[in-house]
Parts: sequence; C-alpha cells; structure tokens
Amino acid sequence: MTYSYEQLHAFTLGMLAKIGCPEDQAKTAADVLLSADLRGVDSHGVARLSGYVRLWEKGRINATPNVRVVHETPSTAVVDGDGGLGLVVAPYAMKVGIEKAKVAGTGWVSVKNSNHYGIAGYHAMQALDHDMIGISLTNASPLVAPTFSQERLLGTNPIAVAIPAKDQPPFVADMATTTAANGKLEILQRKGMDTPTGWVQDKDGNQTTSASGVKDGGALLPLGGDREHGSHKGYALGSIVDIFSAVLSGANYGPWVPPFVAFLEPDPNPVGEGIGHFFGAMRVDAFRPADEFKAHMDNWITRFRTAKPTPGNKKVLIPGDPERELEAIRMKDGIPLLDPVVKDLTELGARFGVKF
Amino acid sequence: MTYSYEQLHAFTLGMLAKIGCPEDQAKTAADVLLSADLRGVDSHGVARLSGYVRLWEKGRINATPNVRVVHETPSTAVVDGDGGLGLVVAPYAMKVGIEKAKVAGTGWVSVKNSNHYGIAGYHAMQALDHDMIGISLTNASPLVAPTFSQERLLGTNPIAVAIPAKDQPPFVADMATTTAANGKLEILQRKGMDTPTGWVQDKDGNQTTSASGVKDGGALLPLGGDREHGSHKGYALGSIVDIFSAVLSGANYGPWVPPFVAFLEPDPNPVGEGIGHFFGAMRVDAFRPADEFKAHMDNWITRFRTAKPTPGNKKVLIPGDPERELEAIRMKDGIPLLDPVVKDLTELGARFGVKF
Repeated sequence: MTYSYEQLHAFTLGMLAKIGCPEDQAKTAADVLLSADLRGVDSHGVARLSGYVRLWEKGRINATPNVRVVHETPSTAVVDGDGGLGLVVAPYAMKVGIEKAKVAGTGWVSVKNSNHYGIAGYHAMQALDHDMIGISLTNASPLVAPTFSQERLLGTNPIAVAIPAKDQPPFVADMATTTAANGKLEILQRKGMDTPTGWVQDKDGNQTTSASGVKDGGALLPLGGDREHGSHKGYALGSIVDIFSAVLSGANYGPWVPPFVAFLEPDPNPVGEGIGHFFGAMRVDAFRPADEFKAHMDNWITRFRTAKPTPGNKKVLIPGDPERELEAIRMKDGIPLLDPVVKDLTELGARFGVKF
Repeated sequence: MTYSYEQLHAFTLGMLAKIGCPEDQAKTAADVLLSADLRGVDSHGVARLSGYVRLWEKGRINATPNVRVVHETPSTAVVDGDGGLGLVVAPYAMKVGIEKAKVAGTGWVSVKNSNHYGIAGYHAMQALDHDMIGISLTNASPLVAPTFSQERLLGTNPIAVAIPAKDQPPFVADMATTTAANGKLEILQRKGMDTPTGWVQDKDGNQTTSASGVKDGGALLPLGGDREHGSHKGYALGSIVDIFSAVLSGANYGPWVPPFVAFLEPDPNPVGEGIGHFFGAMRVDAFRPADEFKAHMDNWITRFRTAKPTPGNKKVLIPGDPERELEAIRMKDGIPLLDPVVKDLTELGARFGVKF
C-alpha cells in the first residue's frame, strides 16, 4: 500500500496532538519522522510512531518538555531535553549549534535526557541552508557487541555529516556504525533468508548468518564484522559516538542506554539521564570563502561521480545520492508501507480517534 | 635488530639537522616519528625517514617553513604549512586548536600546504594533558577505490580521536578508513601470503586476495570491503576526512593529493596546495565539569574492558590499549627494525655523514 506524504504527515500531526504535543513541536516531529520515510529509512519513519506513543503511555516521553541550554561557552552547549521526543529535542539542539557557529565559527552541542531522534541525516542537513557543514550523532539502545565482546554494549550509533556544494546536490553521509542496520535484518527475517557473514553474532558470541540472531539474544556487529576485517574500527567509531553523545552531556551510555521498546524497562540504576545526541555546525567561511569551498565541492563530487566504475556497476555514487533520488520518487508517487505497519497505524489511530 | 628509542631519536635529529631543519622543529618531528615506532605503527616511523629526505631532495619539502595561521574565527583557523614537514606543521596546528579551545570551548584547524604528518594518534593525544578531547584527520596519496570505483581516489585517510579519563588510561582510537592499512599488505607480501577477502581489488576492479594487488595497479578497499559489508560507509568516512582536511583548507584532495614517494611526480594541475590535515580540540569542561566527565569515562572503560569475551578471546580491548602496552615494552626493550629498514637508514646516514 502506498500513502502520500501529506496523508502520513497529517496523521502523525493528529496523533502527536492527541498525546499533548504543542502544535509547533508536533510539526517539527512530523517533519523529521516523515523525512525518514521519504529517504527510504523506513525503520525510522511512521513505522516507529506507535513505539513513541507507547513510551509516552509508560510515562517515558514528556510531550510538553522544557527543552533548554543548561551550560554553554562561545562554541559549545549542553541541552537538557527534559525527557521530550528526540524528534523535537534534536532540531532545537541543532539550531543552538547553528546560532553558535554564526558567531564563533562553529557550534557543538551535546544533549542529555532525550529520546530516539529519528534519522541522523535530517538534523545534519539543517546546516546546509546556512552554508555550514552539519554533523549529527546519537547513541541508542544496546544491540551491538564490541569486537571480542559477547555482550551488547553499544547501539547502532549513527554518524551523519552533511556538506554543502554549489550546483551539485550536497554530500550527505548517514550511516550506522555497524555492518548492517537492524532494519535490514528484519527484512531478511521476513523473507526467511540468511544474512551475509559479518553482520551478526549469536547469543554465545559466535558469528552466525541467522537473520533472527539478534532477536534470539545475539548482537549486531560493528562495521568490519570481525577483527580481520576491521571490526575494531567500527567498534571505536560507535564508542566515539556514544561518548560524545552521552559522556559529554550526562546522558546514559553503553549498556545503560534505555531501550526504545516500551515493554523493556530501563536500567534501575542509570548512569545519566535519557539518551544522548551530539551535533556540530561549522560555518564554511570560517575556513575559506563559501563560494570557493562550494566550487571545489562541485569539483570533488563530479570527479568521484564520473570515476570509472568496477565491472558490473554503473557508476560511483556520492553519499546522499540514493536517498535524494528516492525522496523525489516518494514525494511524487507516495510512500509504500508494509501490511503490518498499516495494521499497526490503523489500530493506533482507532485507539486515539485519529483516522488513518 | 633492536634499537633503543634514544638511538633512533638521535639519528633522526641528526638527519633532520643535515637537511636544514631548525633544532626545535627537528626535535618535534623526531618525537612524532618515533612515537609511531613505539606504538607499533612501524610503517609511519623511522622506516619513512629516507622518504621524507628524498622529497626534500626533490624540493618538495621545505626544511625551514614559515608555518602560520592565514585565516581565523574564535573557534577555527586555517594553517598554511608552507610546504614543511607534516611532522612539524601538524603539532603547530594542533597547538592553535588547543589555544582556541581554551577561550572558545573548542578549536578546529584545517591545514593546507603540508606533507605526511606521521601517525594521526600522536596529534590527537596532544589535547589530553589539557583535559581536552583531541581529533586528528589527514588525507594522503590516492591508494583507495571508493565503492564501485575502479580508480583510486582516496588515501587511507585516518581518523584519530583521543579522550581523557581519570584513573584509567585515555581512550585513543587511531584508524585508517580502509579495511586494512597498506603496511599490513607489505608484511603479507614479504611472507608470500594472501590477504583476507575485502582488503584489496585488482587493477580491473575485481576483488582479489593477492597481497601485491595494490602494487600491481589495484587499490585498497574502504572499511567494509564490499557493498554488502558496508564499504560505502568506509568510503564516506574517507571522503569526510578528505573534505575536512583539504576542501576546507585549500589543499589538494582526492586523486590530486601528491604522492608520498619521490619517484612519482605530483599532478601538474593541482587543485590546491600540498596535502591537508584537520584537527579538533574540545575542552571537556566546555560541556560538563572535567572531574565528572573523567569519572564517567573511567566507568565507561571499566564496563567495556570487563565485558564477557567471545569464545577464544581473553578480553575486550579499549581503543589505545595495544599501542600503549607496546609503547611500554619498546621503550624498555628497544624498537625492532627489519633488515631492509636498517640497510636503508645505514645508507642514508652514510650519504649525509650521520652515524646510524
């Protein structure tokens, strides 16, 4: 089934109003959530809406948060999300970073007491219109085992970096620091297929190709998959994201990050408040004239995109190309939703009196 | 053969004096170079000394550079390395970043017109004594093929991040954004062994396990190895390093980065000056009190280090653990050098009248 952007956006707005979100915050949250659906990160879009609502029902999301800066220097700030939706807290924090950058050249914001913030790339891309480079990191519920660890200690902890160009579309990298995202496992599971090697280990810490490996108590593996293929690098990257997002801000880190799913309780002895994010904004002209920079970005992008491809591949992609192309298609043709998602949203709407 | 730190340091100092380096700069360069040998990154230590000298002989390294800030804002700077040794330019730029951070909370420095800067981690670690997080990136000669590219367009473009702790040693990640570093290929080649999958492609762009694949016109592969295992993420990371280091500063980027080896000429139509680096320094107390942060870092490190290991592995390592342990051993027992390196340094010394 395919739904229009407007249809899903309106439903999301309606639902967020029902749980008490102020109108402007609901609008921001719906923008962030839907951007995931448009860009093909289906696991982080409306499919997650009922999850947020369930957390609110459990009292673990504050629908009317007082999001605020609690500490700052000329180029840094710490934001307390007051237990709000990450979809609301993150855009606020990114704005603080952008304002800092206008004055100090760069702005860096670490956030505590937040919740899941949707897709990382959306927040990084907020910097582009200001001729700034945007950076967006977040920690997440522990599903990932560091190299040599049987235990899950990290989330899929994404890194997003958005870089403006001139006539070319911007460079937008948005990646989990694992070999594969959890969403891809779910797709393979549904199809009854195995995963490639290097994606998952089982509950005993052995590599497996079972797509239900994580569900069965195993773990996702850091980018690289195993030591021989550089998993210690993926582990280090995920750790850096965790530390910048949570140890700098005072959020929970590592295995203490509260689970997204409402049926799992947070650790009774937290080491911080909520989950953490980290944002950066760097004014391009804090380094060199913006026109010069953007002209060279065009040259960079063109050179890479026109490189000779390997046998069987059409062309070299620039980070952000596939998502941008999909966004244009889905804005025009609509957003496909899987049957279980349609069912879930229909039930959610019925329960709250919002027509899906 | 094993040599003491003091012996190799003195030889390096002697050689750098012969090519005209001012004494203080030679001291800094020798410190950086030797730190690679101590930490086990043998390819970036004294083994590279004759390479630097050959570049100087070609007029491609300036032994008496006027390294200086050419643009700045409260939290940023661009440094012109004036064609100097990266081993001298990088510590200068990192110092600029640290001074900026003292006032503005953070400092971010992009560098142009430089050369190879030794190991990335050394520069990031300069921040630690100031209770700052240090970041160090550099681009390098093109040896890496982006996902789907037959051409080499990126260097091994490392990312280093150093984070202070309290009673625990610091977290120090220092990684090439490729599956494996070129140095490891050379070791396998010497032993006549194949590489694991995902390290190398041949000159036609097909995956190979030949350890001479890169030498024979192929390329190193980005972290992940192939698309299915996330190589587009390693490619994106290497690209971000390239753009921050060179497009922000005005250095050469991508395939235009000048080769380290003196027998290959730089591109006759450069897009910038020399090679580029990028440094960051973030004052921990620009976010939260340093004692609090460092106590939580101790907790983070202890929790990860004591996690249950996977079958057949002794323990979970913290980034920086192996290098720190090796540094202690080599400081005590000496630094092993391979026969070809000893021969190369002996000849170098003889040519310049410096006893090895």
